[in-house]
Amino acid sequence: MPRNKEFEPEVALEKAMGVFWRKGYFDTSVDELVQQVGVSRYGLYATFGNKHSLFLAALDRYRDTFVSQLLADLETPKASLEQIQGYFRTLIEISKTERGKFGCFMCNTATELASQDEQVSEKINNYLQRLTKAFHKALTNARSQNEIKSDIDVDDYAKYLTGVSLGLCVYARSRVNPETIEGYVRVVLATLT
Amino acid sequence: MPRNKEFEPEVALEKAMGVFWRKGYFDTSVDELVQQVGVSRYGLYATFGNKHSLFLAALDRYRDTFVSQLLADLETPKASLEQIQGYFRTLIEISKTERGKFGCFMCNTATELASQDEQVSEKINNYLQRLTKAFHKALTNARSQNEIKSDIDVDDYAKYLTGVSLGLCVYARSRVNPETIEGYVRVVLATLT
Repeated sequence: MPRNKEFEPEVALEKAMGVFWRKGYFDTSVDELVQQVGVSRYGLYATFGNKHSLFLAALDRYRDTFVSQLLADLETPKASLEQIQGYFRTLIEISKTERGKFGCFMCNTATELASQDEQVSEKINNYLQRLTKAFHKALTNARSQNEIKSDIDVDDYAKYLTGVSLGLCVYARSRVNPETIEGYVRVVLATLT
Repeated sequence: MPRNKEFEPEVALEKAMGVFWRKGYFDTSVDELVQQVGVSRYGLYATFGNKHSLFLAALDRYRDTFVSQLLADLETPKASLEQIQGYFRTLIEISKTERGKFGCFMCNTATELASQDEQVSEKINNYLQRLTKAFHKALTNARSQNEIKSDIDVDDYAKYLTGVSLGLCVYARSRVNPETIEGYVRVVLATLT
């Protein structure tokens, strides 16, 4: 057992992710991270480098946990219309939870940092491409199974579904009423069939 | 002519709006505002109160200038499909400009602050309601003139068009390529007719 084991990096990263997700990058101070994560400033720097590298690690953790879980069904090779519908219905359910009211950590970060931080911008664009690719595959399957309208341009619709996901996240973060988000998704899904 | 006239409040507000729009609330320091706006710290506080009240005034200025200009056609009583299409085409053009790459100040602020700041949240929700109301009126006119599909639910579609506008703003701020935004809008407009 290691001597002077101060904290579990995974647990610390999970907590830091929660703070950054809720408050954003610039409103989160190192003092606050130290307090919320429950480690010393030395321990934080020794393990994660500086605030910026901890933020990048938190974004990666969000991608590997929340995003991967959210996209699990949509990213299966046989995903089609059902998985697209399921993805948006899950987003609606998430938007009603306490954590969902903080929106999507990726989307929040896109508006806060992507225009001024190359490393963040790359992560955001990888995320958008991942989402678009998943939609593209599911739309291709859905079209070959005649589940969606035959005149749908799969390339455009994949970008479209990614963009409307971003819109939903801003709606959620703005704390509009659930009926607004439900009406929004109802139209999006109806445009497919 | 007033003695010791330090600066024009309207000009200062315009400059402050530009800084907040580009960098957001938390990344903008009072020192930076003083420098960018070209006034003394005393002049800034005396005219606008603190950083927070200056930010609220900058949001109002954005609403009364950029938003009002963007919505001018859409908010005319006879607006219909043509004005909805024009609105989205204008957004595409704006997204290609230098300022457009900073996205929409309202949308950026929604993700940065609306979940934790009541005064900001109220302004964001007023903006979303204004946009939804304009779409609602234009959709109602368009439907009565048989310009859009007869089965369109005007209530849902008004929320939908507001949400897709938010998605477009996040796309723009993420600096995706113009083809992505164009493909996105192409689908949105095609869903109407």
